[in-house]
Amino acid sequence: MPLIVQKFGGTSVADAERIRTVADHVARTRAHGNQVVVVVSAMGKTTDELIRMASEVSKSQPGREMDMLLTSGERVSMALLCMALADLGVKAASFTGSQAGIITDTDHTRAKILEVRGDRLREALAGDMVPVVAGFQGVSTARDVTTLGRGGSDTTAVALAAALAADFCEIYTDVSGVFNADPRIVPAARKLERVSFEEMLEISSSGGRVLALRSVEYARNHSVELHVRSAFTWEPGTWVVREDTRMEQPVVSAVTHDVSEAKLTVAGVPDKPGIAARLFRGLADRSINVDMIEQNTSIEGTTDISFTVPKEDFEVSRAMAEALAPEVGASGVFSDTHIGTVSLVGAGMKTHPAVAAQMFETLAAEGINIEMISTSSIRISCVVAQEEVEKAVQALHSSFGLG
Amino acid sequence: MPLIVQKFGGTSVADAERIRTVADHVARTRAHGNQVVVVVSAMGKTTDELIRMASEVSKSQPGREMDMLLTSGERVSMALLCMALADLGVKAASFTGSQAGIITDTDHTRAKILEVRGDRLREALAGDMVPVVAGFQGVSTARDVTTLGRGGSDTTAVALAAALAADFCEIYTDVSGVFNADPRIVPAARKLERVSFEEMLEISSSGGRVLALRSVEYARNHSVELHVRSAFTWEPGTWVVREDTRMEQPVVSAVTHDVSEAKLTVAGVPDKPGIAARLFRGLADRSINVDMIEQNTSIEGTTDISFTVPKEDFEVSRAMAEALAPEVGASGVFSDTHIGTVSLVGAGMKTHPAVAAQMFETLAAEGINIEMISTSSIRISCVVAQEEVEKAVQALHSSFGLG
Repeated sequence: MPLIVQKFGGTSVADAERIRTVADHVARTRAHGNQVVVVVSAMGKTTDELIRMASEVSKSQPGREMDMLLTSGERVSMALLCMALADLGVKAASFTGSQAGIITDTDHTRAKILEVRGDRLREALAGDMVPVVAGFQGVSTARDVTTLGRGGSDTTAVALAAALAADFCEIYTDVSGVFNADPRIVPAARKLERVSFEEMLEISSSGGRVLALRSVEYARNHSVELHVRSAFTWEPGTWVVREDTRMEQPVVSAVTHDVSEAKLTVAGVPDKPGIAARLFRGLADRSINVDMIEQNTSIEGTTDISFTVPKEDFEVSRAMAEALAPEVGASGVFSDTHIGTVSLVGAGMKTHPAVAAQMFETLAAEGINIEMISTSSIRISCVVAQEEVEKAVQALHSSFGLG
Repeated sequence: MPLIVQKFGGTSVADAERIRTVADHVARTRAHGNQVVVVVSAMGKTTDELIRMASEVSKSQPGREMDMLLTSGERVSMALLCMALADLGVKAASFTGSQAGIITDTDHTRAKILEVRGDRLREALAGDMVPVVAGFQGVSTARDVTTLGRGGSDTTAVALAAALAADFCEIYTDVSGVFNADPRIVPAARKLERVSFEEMLEISSSGGRVLALRSVEYARNHSVELHVRSAFTWEPGTWVVREDTRMEQPVVSAVTHDVSEAKLTVAGVPDKPGIAARLFRGLADRSINVDMIEQNTSIEGTTDISFTVPKEDFEVSRAMAEALAPEVGASGVFSDTHIGTVSLVGAGMKTHPAVAAQMFETLAAEGINIEMISTSSIRISCVVAQEEVEKAVQALHSSFGLG
């Protein structure tokens, strides 16, 4: 009998009616001859509300206690979903991350999964039950409750699908799939039927918000096919699968954008070994996630190093760069918080060298200045002024025939 | 170093400010040279709210899932309290019932504690930490999350105090102790400084609401001294201790009352063996908690059996009694839902036979008719009309000089 892991996000279980709707869908999936394992997030805005309470109570929020606090959210949604399933005559049982055997490291609030045991889930399936598992949480090797960080429920679902050798993993969300541009900016944006893991990784890392990067990495590493679809319309969504020869390889699959970052430039850096290392080691030690890094060829013995960081880490990063600049003999630090990144992603790009040229021409024709460029084998990203981002996305979507 | 278990009820941790106040009190208790283990209930009305959500989602509410749902409440309060303690520089760590090693049977929503392991709490204490434990919850022998039923947090606190050999257990609540009558009815009611376990058992079982009966039984069986006091005024409250020769033994310690029950009488019951057994087995099988039972001496071969049940079980009980009456040849069933019970409790009553007489005289002088009488060695209870209860309590409080 096929085994499907179905993951429902917070908006999909936001109230009593939606929980009953989800229960109905799970019951139908079973009635069609499938075994089902369900993964749920906390209801609606529960997690944000708990974080607000914590900040109201305390200035120091130890990670271990934040995790204890936040993991209360999924208990509520999963217990309620099991009750709704019982009303439909479907035997179900809820399992915490710990009960499901999701073993993590001890890095509270952003733990990594080390092992998925899943014995109790297998027992439940063997007993013709639907296990309903708390997303986002696990238990550490020190026997403490942990959470997996933002997007953790997707990772839970993928990890369970891998451990239980599920046929595939359905990620139900509030949008109907992965689009080839943000439909709020490009009305002609189309839903993608299939993308490869690699494309999905690039889409997620360059601003696509449908799937957390981590869960896509996990899915790729364990060959778990994903089906991203809507818990509101229930229509087929986007399949994320292993790239194969039968797969159509569009040159460009999607245009993505991201306005959550800021840019810093350390200018006039003497061209000698170790300076970049000092800068980025300092940022890494503060857990600042640097995205793009660009260093031009040295001219007359000095060079400029530019990089982007999340806006929330901007002030800390600038202070670090400004402290370092005189120490290493750099001439100064420039920064810009009004930037955005526009990217093209496509598995076929590897064999079509003209994509970059066409991208730059399209932006030039719109009078948009490119501040930084970075590429991977299947992605090209340009940093532009923040107010030009929407126009850039629209122009690229049209130029590459994605409508 | 003395070890104190401090239990804080829902009103004591109802909001951010109260949680910080509790943290402050715990910190002071430590600063006075004590080790502390804290037990908390869910914040304010959380549990009621979760029950409401369950009834909104589903008609069938499997016990296992209700327990998963309800145990989310203490996670929130205990994590927040640990954060508030961290702000005060007190190292604290929260533990679920399962992590604290509170092992129960599998009777969901009203599980009984089978064993308290407490290894992780001992480790935390050895590491100079304050363990903050979720009240009301445990883990069953089948590894499922369980709850202990109403008043379960008090039982958790007492059970931990016993298992950890604490010096005593403080129960913080929204009243300042155990009073010798309900202060809302008797303005002259006095707070009791000390009561014996046996008196407290009778007070709890005859309508006193400060401590759950179960937690008092557990305390008596394990000789855990209790200190019931207010988390609002922090003043000394009432000690519940083993009765000993040094203890003053007042003839009457308290007047209690209870208007939560209804009375049923099966009249004209043939006086032969087995009839009462059939009736009460039937009630027991429906988990109906019969309180008082009275059967008068048989006159002319028939007798009347009267008993009281909680009002919420009244309709089921009456239907049962009415179905049984013709089968056993009884003449009929009479019922009264407008009754109340007034009780006198006192350890010294054993050696003072005149208490009953004085009680009946006091009620007679007020023109109050007694409908049923039941006694234990340290309690006398009279069933009276519900509208006479307040007057009866006031008259008895005055008559026995409790003001």
